[in-house]
Amino acid sequence: MVTTYRWSRHTDARPAEEESAVPSPQELAARTRAFVHDRVLPVEREVVVDGRPMDDALRLELQKAAKEAGVFGPMSAVEHGGLGLDMRGAALVMEAAGTSLIGPLAVNCSAPDDGNIHLLAHACDEEQTRRYLAPLAAGEVRSAIAMTEPAPGAGSDPRMLMTVAEETDDGWVINGRKHFTTGAEGAAFTICVANTDDGVTLFLVDQDNPGMKVGRRMPTLDHSNPGGHSEVAFEDCVVPDSAVLGEVGRGLDHAQARLAPSRLTLCMNWLGLATRAHELSARHIGGRSAFGVPISEHGMAQGLVADNEIDIAASRALIHSTATVLDEQGPLSSDARHAASVAKTFVAEAVWRVFDRAVQLHGGLGVCEDHLVARFLVEARAVRIYEGASEVLRWSIGRRVLRTVQRDA
Amino acid sequence: MVTTYRWSRHTDARPAEEESAVPSPQELAARTRAFVHDRVLPVEREVVVDGRPMDDALRLELQKAAKEAGVFGPMSAVEHGGLGLDMRGAALVMEAAGTSLIGPLAVNCSAPDDGNIHLLAHACDEEQTRRYLAPLAAGEVRSAIAMTEPAPGAGSDPRMLMTVAEETDDGWVINGRKHFTTGAEGAAFTICVANTDDGVTLFLVDQDNPGMKVGRRMPTLDHSNPGGHSEVAFEDCVVPDSAVLGEVGRGLDHAQARLAPSRLTLCMNWLGLATRAHELSARHIGGRSAFGVPISEHGMAQGLVADNEIDIAASRALIHSTATVLDEQGPLSSDARHAASVAKTFVAEAVWRVFDRAVQLHGGLGVCEDHLVARFLVEARAVRIYEGASEVLRWSIGRRVLRTVQRDA
Amino acid sequence: MVTTYRWSRHTDARPAEEESAVPSPQELAARTRAFVHDRVLPVEREVVVDGRPMDDALRLELQKAAKEAGVFGPMSAVEHGGLGLDMRGAALVMEAAGTSLIGPLAVNCSAPDDGNIHLLAHACDEEQTRRYLAPLAAGEVRSAIAMTEPAPGAGSDPRMLMTVAEETDDGWVINGRKHFTTGAEGAAFTICVANTDDGVTLFLVDQDNPGMKVGRRMPTLDHSNPGGHSEVAFEDCVVPDSAVLGEVGRGLDHAQARLAPSRLTLCMNWLGLATRAHELSARHIGGRSAFGVPISEHGMAQGLVADNEIDIAASRALIHSTATVLDEQGPLSSDARHAASVAKTFVAEAVWRVFDRAVQLHGGLGVCEDHLVARFLVEARAVRIYEGASEVLRWSIGRRVLRTVQRDA
Amino acid sequence: MVTTYRWSRHTDARPAEEESAVPSPQELAARTRAFVHDRVLPVEREVVVDGRPMDDALRLELQKAAKEAGVFGPMSAVEHGGLGLDMRGAALVMEAAGTSLIGPLAVNCSAPDDGNIHLLAHACDEEQTRRYLAPLAAGEVRSAIAMTEPAPGAGSDPRMLMTVAEETDDGWVINGRKHFTTGAEGAAFTICVANTDDGVTLFLVDQDNPGMKVGRRMPTLDHSNPGGHSEVAFEDCVVPDSAVLGEVGRGLDHAQARLAPSRLTLCMNWLGLATRAHELSARHIGGRSAFGVPISEHGMAQGLVADNEIDIAASRALIHSTATVLDEQGPLSSDARHAASVAKTFVAEAVWRVFDRAVQLHGGLGVCEDHLVARFLVEARAVRIYEGASEVLRWSIGRRVLRTVQRDA
Repeated sequence: MVTTYRWSRHTDARPAEEESAVPSPQELAARTRAFVHDRVLPVEREVVVDGRPMDDALRLELQKAAKEAGVFGPMSAVEHGGLGLDMRGAALVMEAAGTSLIGPLAVNCSAPDDGNIHLLAHACDEEQTRRYLAPLAAGEVRSAIAMTEPAPGAGSDPRMLMTVAEETDDGWVINGRKHFTTGAEGAAFTICVANTDDGVTLFLVDQDNPGMKVGRRMPTLDHSNPGGHSEVAFEDCVVPDSAVLGEVGRGLDHAQARLAPSRLTLCMNWLGLATRAHELSARHIGGRSAFGVPISEHGMAQGLVADNEIDIAASRALIHSTATVLDEQGPLSSDARHAASVAKTFVAEAVWRVFDRAVQLHGGLGVCEDHLVARFLVEARAVRIYEGASEVLRWSIGRRVLRTVQRDA
Repeated sequence: MVTTYRWSRHTDARPAEEESAVPSPQELAARTRAFVHDRVLPVEREVVVDGRPMDDALRLELQKAAKEAGVFGPMSAVEHGGLGLDMRGAALVMEAAGTSLIGPLAVNCSAPDDGNIHLLAHACDEEQTRRYLAPLAAGEVRSAIAMTEPAPGAGSDPRMLMTVAEETDDGWVINGRKHFTTGAEGAAFTICVANTDDGVTLFLVDQDNPGMKVGRRMPTLDHSNPGGHSEVAFEDCVVPDSAVLGEVGRGLDHAQARLAPSRLTLCMNWLGLATRAHELSARHIGGRSAFGVPISEHGMAQGLVADNEIDIAASRALIHSTATVLDEQGPLSSDARHAASVAKTFVAEAVWRVFDRAVQLHGGLGVCEDHLVARFLVEARAVRIYEGASEVLRWSIGRRVLRTVQRDA
Repeated sequence: MVTTYRWSRHTDARPAEEESAVPSPQELAARTRAFVHDRVLPVEREVVVDGRPMDDALRLELQKAAKEAGVFGPMSAVEHGGLGLDMRGAALVMEAAGTSLIGPLAVNCSAPDDGNIHLLAHACDEEQTRRYLAPLAAGEVRSAIAMTEPAPGAGSDPRMLMTVAEETDDGWVINGRKHFTTGAEGAAFTICVANTDDGVTLFLVDQDNPGMKVGRRMPTLDHSNPGGHSEVAFEDCVVPDSAVLGEVGRGLDHAQARLAPSRLTLCMNWLGLATRAHELSARHIGGRSAFGVPISEHGMAQGLVADNEIDIAASRALIHSTATVLDEQGPLSSDARHAASVAKTFVAEAVWRVFDRAVQLHGGLGVCEDHLVARFLVEARAVRIYEGASEVLRWSIGRRVLRTVQRDA
Repeated sequence: MVTTYRWSRHTDARPAEEESAVPSPQELAARTRAFVHDRVLPVEREVVVDGRPMDDALRLELQKAAKEAGVFGPMSAVEHGGLGLDMRGAALVMEAAGTSLIGPLAVNCSAPDDGNIHLLAHACDEEQTRRYLAPLAAGEVRSAIAMTEPAPGAGSDPRMLMTVAEETDDGWVINGRKHFTTGAEGAAFTICVANTDDGVTLFLVDQDNPGMKVGRRMPTLDHSNPGGHSEVAFEDCVVPDSAVLGEVGRGLDHAQARLAPSRLTLCMNWLGLATRAHELSARHIGGRSAFGVPISEHGMAQGLVADNEIDIAASRALIHSTATVLDEQGPLSSDARHAASVAKTFVAEAVWRVFDRAVQLHGGLGVCEDHLVARFLVEARAVRIYEGASEVLRWSIGRRVLRTVQRDA
C-alpha cells in the first residue's frame, strides 16, 4: 500500500474541536525558539567550545527535551508523533530550530532523516510504515540513504548509477559501492538506490545485514550529523522482496518525493543559523570600539550588517513562497521541483555570505573555532554542494526556463 | 478631515454580493497582462524603436484603453475609480503592468502619481480630496512632489531642507529651489515640501501659480515619465491656508505615507520589466547558434538565464512578503518602513542584474537602443538612486538592526 | 611584401643620438595627460553637455592639436608619423589619452583604426602601405573592418562567416551582409572579411566602390566613434587582386595580428576613463554633505571609493603585465592571445564597476546625461561585448587552461 | 646602530664576478618550484591527509632540505644566508614556495618571521643583529611579535594599545596582555609592542624571560604556523635597555618597516597556493564525467576555471606592480604602504574566491578535509583578516584617495 503523505494539516478534514487544540505554526515556532534558546544552546556550547561529539547520546538527550517541550517532529505526521505541519508551517518552526547548529537534530528534522521521512511516507506499505517510518518519525532510530557513488558512479548525475540489484528466487542481491552516505554509522536502516532490470529501485536494508558494510567515515568539513558521512559497500547483500520500497523500477520517481522537501528544509534550517550569526555579529560590533567610535558606527560595518539583513529577508521570503508551491501543488509537481531548486541555490549562497560577513565582523575572533561563527562558516561550506550543487541546479534551472520559453513561443 | 486610506479590500466590510462581483487580484493580474500584451506593447514599440515621446497624449491614449479593459488604477480606491487593491493584490497586478516600460503609466500607477495618491488619500481633507485626489486617481491630471533640492539643500537627508514657507495674514509665501521634481512639467499641481516655523509642512501648489516656475527638464538617463524630472523654483509663491496638506509641521510624517508604498510599487513595476527582459533573452538565445550549437545550450548562457530566474523569484517573494507587512501593519509602521527599505534595496539591484545579463545574452544587439533590453538597462539605472539610494537605505537598515539588537541585549 | 610591424622601440637598433632625442613613454604620458586636460576636455564638454556630435570635423580639430602637442599616434610606427611605442609604453600613453571619452580619438588610437593599423602594418605590401596604412596612421583618413554579420552569420564564431568572395578573371566579387561595422560611415576604406575557396581572406575595399553600400547606422548605446557602427552590404562588389590584404585564405591568421593588441588598447583607453570617473566622484563627495558630515566621511562611500581604487590598480597592473607578454612574445603568440583575453575580460568588467560606483557616488546627478559619469557608464556598456564578449572569452580562457592541464598531466 | 635593510640586490654595488654567480630570480623560482614539488608535497600530504602536526620538527626537516636545494631565505639578506632578493624577485620565488601550504615555512618566509626579519633588518643594532636577526634569518630559531590585544586593547587600531612599559633604573618593566601572538609557542624571542612615556616602543623579549607567559594556543581555523597563535601575558616582565628595538617612542614607525612587506609576502604565498588549487581543480574535472560529457566540457565549470585564471592573473600582476613600488620607493614610503594595502585587499579576496571555486569544482570531495582544496579554503579564511582586515584596509585606502583628491583640487 502506497500511502499518501499528508502534506498539510490545513487540508485535513479534522474535527473543529481537535483543530482548536492544535497550536498554530506561529505558536510552535515561538515555542521552538524558546526551547532552542533554553535547552539546546547550552549543549551547542559544549559541542563547539568543548568539542563534545555530535553523537547519538547527544541526539537522544536533545530529542527527549524536544518531546517534553512539545516541539518534536515539525514535519512528521501527527499519527507518527510529529507536529504534522505543512511546508509553510514548517518554514517557521524549522527556521526557529535552525537557530542552533544542533537544533534541527533536536527536533528530528535534520538530514537525511527529514528527507527520508518524506520518502517513506510517500512510498512505504503498511508493514514498512510500522517497521521503518514509525520509529524513524518518533526519533527512536536514525536512517541513511545510499545514493551517491564514487567516480565513475553516480554523483550529480543519477543516470551514472553503478550499484546493481539482481532478482533471485528469494529476493534480491545488491552489489555496489557508495560514499557520502549521511548518517550510515549508527543508522537502523539504509535506503539503497540500485539499478535493476526494470530501472532504478529503492531497497530498505537493515543495518545488521551482513552484506552491507559501513566503511570509513569521510572527513568532511561539516560535523553536524550524528553518523557523519560514510563509505558503504554492498557485497552480495541479500534482501527479501519486502525490502523493496515503493515500486520496482520507479526508484527515481519515488526519490523525488524527498528531493524538493529536503532541499527546502535544508534552506529553513540554515536560514535559522544565519539569523543567529547575524544577531551574534550585530551584538559583537555593538560592544567594541576602534578608531574612536563603536565598530557599529563604522559605515562599512553597517553595510555588512545591512547586507546580512537583506540576504536573510530575501531567503525567508523565497522559502515561504516555495513552501506555498510545495503545499499547493505537491512536492512531485514540476513547479515545486523547479521552485525548490531556485530556493536552494539562492539560500545556500545567501547564508554562506551571511556567515562569511559574520566572521569578518568578528575580526580575529571570527576565525577562532571556539567562536560560533567560525564553526558555522565551516559547517556551511557543504550546503552549496549537498542536495544539488549550485552549478548543477543552475544548469537545471536555466534549461527549464529555456524549454518553457521555447514551448510557449 | 484626514481620511484613512483603505489599505485592503480584504478588510473592508463590503456586502457579500458586491464582493463577489469584484474580480480577484489573480484575475486582475491576468487581465492586466493581456491588456499590456495586446494594447501597450505596440505603443512601447513606437516609443523605443521609433522614438515616440512619452508625453501626455500617449498617457491619455493608454489610460483610456486601460479603463476600457477594466485594469485602471490598481492602487486607487474604488470610490476614486480604482481597483482598490491592497499591496499584496497590487503586487500581482503591478508586476503584470510592469511587463512593459509604459505599462505602469497606462494603468496609472507610475511615479510620482502612485505615491502621491497614497499621500493624498492619507492626508487630504474633503475639499482637497475632491479637488486633487479624485482627478489624480481618475487619471484626469498628473501631479508632482517637490522634495529634492540642489546642494547644499535636501538630497538624501531631509533635515537639510532649505525651502521655506512663511506664514502671512493671507496664507503662506514659499521660497526655494527644487530639482528632480518628477512630472512637474504638465502636472496639474505640485506638492511642495517646505520648512515652516513649526516644522516641515506640505503645500498643494496649483500649476498656474505664478510663484512656481518649472525650469529646465533634467537630462536623466530615464525617459519613462511623461513630465520628466525638472528644476522648479518657488519665488514668493503665495498659497492660501487651504493649500496645507495634512497638518502644519507634520509634513515628514505625512510623507512617510507615500514612502514605503512608493518604494514597493517601484519594485513591483521593475520586477515586471525584469521578467520581460528575462523572457526576451531566453527567447533570443533559443533562436541563435554559435560554435556549433544553439546559444541556449552553452553552459555559461544557461547560467545567466538561471541567475535571472533566481533573482526574479527572490524579488517576487520579497515583494510579496513586504506587501504583507504593509497590509497588516500599515505603511507608517516601523516594520513596514524597514521591510520596504530592505525590499527596495534588494529588488533595485536584482532587476539591474537581470537587465545587465539580458543585454549580455543579446550580444551586440543588446546595446542597440532600438532593442528593448538596451533601453530597459538605461532606464533602470536610476532605480538604485531614486526613492532612496542603495547606500542610504543600507545605512538605515544596518543602523536599525544594530539598534534593535542593542535594545534586546 | 609582408612587413613586420616594429613592436618596440626598445628592440630597434636606432643610433644612440636619435634615441636620446626621443622622449620616454613616461614623458609622453605626462604630455598626453596635459594635452587631454588642456585641449580635449573643453571639447568633451561640448560633446557631453551640449550634444556636439563626435564627427570627423571634431576628430580633425583634435588630431591637429595632438600633432602640435607631439602626442599623436601612440601605436603608429615612427615612419608613419607615430610615436612608435611598444605595448608597455603605449599602456602609459593611452591610459592618459583615455582620461577623456574623446582622448583616444584625438591621438588616433581609437577603435577600429588602432587595430587596423596593427593589422595593416602586419599584412600590407608596399603599395598598400603607401595607399592605406600611411594615410590611416597619419590621421588623414579613417578605416573600417567588416567582420560581424547578422544572424545566422558570423557573430562571436568566425566559422559562421557567410560573406563570400569569388575569384574572377579580373579579381574578386564579394557578396554578403555585415553589421556593427564600426566607423564605416565616412571611412576611406573598409577591410572586408570574406570566405573564398581557399579559406577566409581579407579585402581592402575603397569607400567609393559602388558594390559596397553603407546602410543604417545602428543606434548603439555608445556614440564615441565618428562613424558609429553601420550595416554594410556587399552586392556584387568587384575588387582587383591588389585588394587582397596579406595572403588568400589566411585572413583569420592575419586578423589575429589586430586582435590581442585591439583588446589591450581597449583596456588602456577605458582604464583611463575609469581613473577620470574615480577622480570625479572622489571630488564630488568631498564637496557635499549629508546627515551632518561630508559624504566623503561616510564609510559606505569610502568603501566605494576604495573599491574603485582597487579595481583601477588591478586593471593597470594586468594591462602592464599583458603588454609585456605582447612585447616579448609578439601579438600572434598563444600566450599573448590568452593574456589579452584574460585582461580584456577583467578590465572590461572592472571599469564597468568603476563607472557604476561613480554614478552611485554622484547620487541623482549621476544619472543626468549632461554629467560625465552618466555618459561614461552608458558608453561603457558595450565594452563587455565588443572585441569579444565576456562569456565567449571566459569560454576560451577556461578551455585553454583545461587543455594545458590535461596536456601537462 | 640602525642599519639599512638592503632592499635589492640590484642596487647593491657588488663586484661583477660575484653577481654573475648569483642565479636570477627566474632561476630561483624554477628551483623553488621543483623543490616544493619534490620535497615539500610529500610532507604536505602527511600534514593534510595523515594529520601530521606542523611543528618545529617538521620545520627543521623542511628547512634543511631547502638549504640543500639552495632556495632558503628568499627575503633574507645574503650575509644572513638568504637569497637577498628584492620584492620583485621575491614575488617569483615566494609564489613558487607558496604552491604548498608548508612551502613558505620550508624556505623561511612565512609569518611572522618574514615580517620580523624585515623589521629587525631595519631596526637592529649590531649586537641585536648578531643575537636576534642572524639566527632568525638562518632558520635556527623562530620569533613572534606581540601586538594585538584583547578588547578593549589594540586590535585594528594601534592607538588603543594598553600594554605599558615603565622605565626603571635597570631597564624596563612591561605589563599587559596580548593575543593572536603568532608563533609565540616555541619562539626564541618575542617583539613586544608597548606604550612608554615617549610613545610606542618595541622590546626584544627572550622567551625564557620569567615575566612573559605564553598562554592558551587559540583554536584558529588556520594551522599552518608551527607555533600557532597564542595568548601572551607580560607580568612585571623586566628587560634591560638593550632590549629596546630601534628608538624609544618610535615603535609604530619601525613597525611600518614590516607592514607593507608582510602584506605583500602574504599575497605572494597565497597566490602560490591559489595556483595550486586552480591546477588541482582543472585536473579534477578533466578526469570526471557527468550528464554524458566530461565535467571539463560543462560551460559553467569552464566559467569557474576561467574566473580562477583571471583572478590569479590579476593578483600576480598587482603583486608585481606593488613589489616595484616597494623596491623603488622603499617600504616606508606612503605610496608603498598604499599600494600594499590595495594589493593585500584584492589578493586576499581573489585567492579566497579561487579556493572557493576549487572546492565547488571538486564537488563532494571538495569538502573532505583530506582533500587539499578543503584544507586550503579553511586555512585561507583568516587571510582577509590577518595583517589588516579588508574593511580596515578599504577604509584606509578610501580616505587616502579622498585626501589626495582634495589636496590636488
